[in-house]
Amino acid sequence: MLVSGRRLLTALLQAQRWPFQPSREMRLVQFHAPHLEGPRLGLELGKDRGVIDLNAFDSTLPKTMIEFLEQGEATLSAARKALTASLPVLPWSEVTFLPPVTRPDKVVCVGMNYVDHCKEQNVPVPKEPIIFSKFASSIVGPYDEIVLPPKSQQVDWEVELAIIIGKAGKHIQATDAMAHVAGFTVAHDVSARDWQMGRNGNQWLLGKTFDTFCPLGPALVTKDSVPDPHNLRICCRVNGELMQNSSTNRMVFKTEELIAWVSQFVTLYPGDVFLTGTPPGVGVFRKPPVFLKKGDEVQCEIEELGVIINRVV
Amino acid sequence: MLVSGRRLLTALLQAQRWPFQPSREMRLVQFHAPHLEGPRLGLELGKDRGVIDLNAFDSTLPKTMIEFLEQGEATLSAARKALTASLPVLPWSEVTFLPPVTRPDKVVCVGMNYVDHCKEQNVPVPKEPIIFSKFASSIVGPYDEIVLPPKSQQVDWEVELAIIIGKAGKHIQATDAMAHVAGFTVAHDVSARDWQMGRNGNQWLLGKTFDTFCPLGPALVTKDSVPDPHNLRICCRVNGELMQNSSTNRMVFKTEELIAWVSQFVTLYPGDVFLTGTPPGVGVFRKPPVFLKKGDEVQCEIEELGVIINRVV
Repeated sequence: MLVSGRRLLTALLQAQRWPFQPSREMRLVQFHAPHLEGPRLGLELGKDRGVIDLNAFDSTLPKTMIEFLEQGEATLSAARKALTASLPVLPWSEVTFLPPVTRPDKVVCVGMNYVDHCKEQNVPVPKEPIIFSKFASSIVGPYDEIVLPPKSQQVDWEVELAIIIGKAGKHIQATDAMAHVAGFTVAHDVSARDWQMGRNGNQWLLGKTFDTFCPLGPALVTKDSVPDPHNLRICCRVNGELMQNSSTNRMVFKTEELIAWVSQFVTLYPGDVFLTGTPPGVGVFRKPPVFLKKGDEVQCEIEELGVIINRVV
Repeated sequence: MLVSGRRLLTALLQAQRWPFQPSREMRLVQFHAPHLEGPRLGLELGKDRGVIDLNAFDSTLPKTMIEFLEQGEATLSAARKALTASLPVLPWSEVTFLPPVTRPDKVVCVGMNYVDHCKEQNVPVPKEPIIFSKFASSIVGPYDEIVLPPKSQQVDWEVELAIIIGKAGKHIQATDAMAHVAGFTVAHDVSARDWQMGRNGNQWLLGKTFDTFCPLGPALVTKDSVPDPHNLRICCRVNGELMQNSSTNRMVFKTEELIAWVSQFVTLYPGDVFLTGTPPGVGVFRKPPVFLKKGDEVQCEIEELGVIINRVV
């Protein structure tokens, strides 16, 4: 399910030429390495430096991100210690990056949450958030493949800022919402337009939730490592061509409002993921429309957070 | 969160007068008991006999239903042995019943899947299944309370047959589908009509997924214990008054077709729950419409499977 080594390297080198410098702060990852047992938790230090194995640093730390988040400040401060210690680093080439969370209770998605994405489809800017969902089974890692389903002819791209919940809560006030956020990551809300629009009783779920339709990563960047999540460049390239290019400052409902809104309905749990909507430039509203085909390579990038690279097969 | 002891007893005695005899075969439950550690797995033998503690019978058995199902035939045959052995039984009064599965990867819901429920709302019978979802966080136990959310004034009832997946799979053929089913249970697809209809961009999710909006149970009745899941009486009573009264033989798309359909989109995992749609008689289509209010008691019952009783608070 991985982008081949050479393709990935080429893409990453290309990404290095971009103006965005990823934060060098706390970048939590889940990963596999050939000589280490099971999935593990790590700190990603960048392509030139590699990954610190947090489970080797402290064997009492959990091996999954959700358990790590459930333990709250104690595990976070252990990770902070690891960041400042002089620890051996696994080279990037030995590591297989998994999605930063697996099997969360919820993948909450927000529709029409960029002003200019509403304009491109001629719909009014929503007065309250529009919430739909993907099943957690759609999540794949930051460099995994997107599998084109035989049932769809209209698979489209959508880069999105993802919020990852760190602390459980219900009826959270907007002023309190950031206390419930663990951090941010990059998401690709892959969308089968022929299933999202005009079929399935107009319920978007099926078009959004095919297996592999939620690439996520490369890291959970903790909130204290992101100066302002609502002022980050966000873009999507297909085969190197810039298709979406915006800023998270164009979001209609921001992190605090989205958490307050959704937590009126449901209890949020550590590991829950919010996909906060996409900027304009998707394929379906181009003239003529453009859709993903086998062999395409999609790069979704957000300033400070990094880039995910997913080949379409 | 429990119906008070006396109310529950009254309701259960009332239920005993109904004509449906629950199957005495394999009825798997998750439960708590005051003197036993953590949630446990058990075999429910009926109100007069109580519950066998499967974890006491075999300490190698997992304590959650999803892990139990993941282990497949080995754990099922241990449970079968327990059923025929002469084992001590926990009296019903000492047991708190949990939902038969907790935190499944998916709660798949099917809309408009009874012919006469389509008629009552003047919509055509769908030509393919209409799929939506609830978050797993909405699941509560068979005798837990339904909490009326302050945000809705139109909370309605829907009794449904629930399928629980036992074996993972993708692109499952209808002829193979029953091999992926662990068993069946009763679900209450509680629905806030004011949020389901005409708000949230017409996406049903929010109206369906408030906390406590998915009572489930009382037991996972294994498929071999249910002679024909598509020929069971299904009914819903509100404060003793019969509101829905039908048979699962009126379902448009049956278990096999639903599993085949959904598994074209997503991989199914052990513990995934399908809510297969509701028969006619819901509150919103009555003239005048009727909705649930504080103090109401809803009983959802399916022949062979049992009854769940949930008070509205």
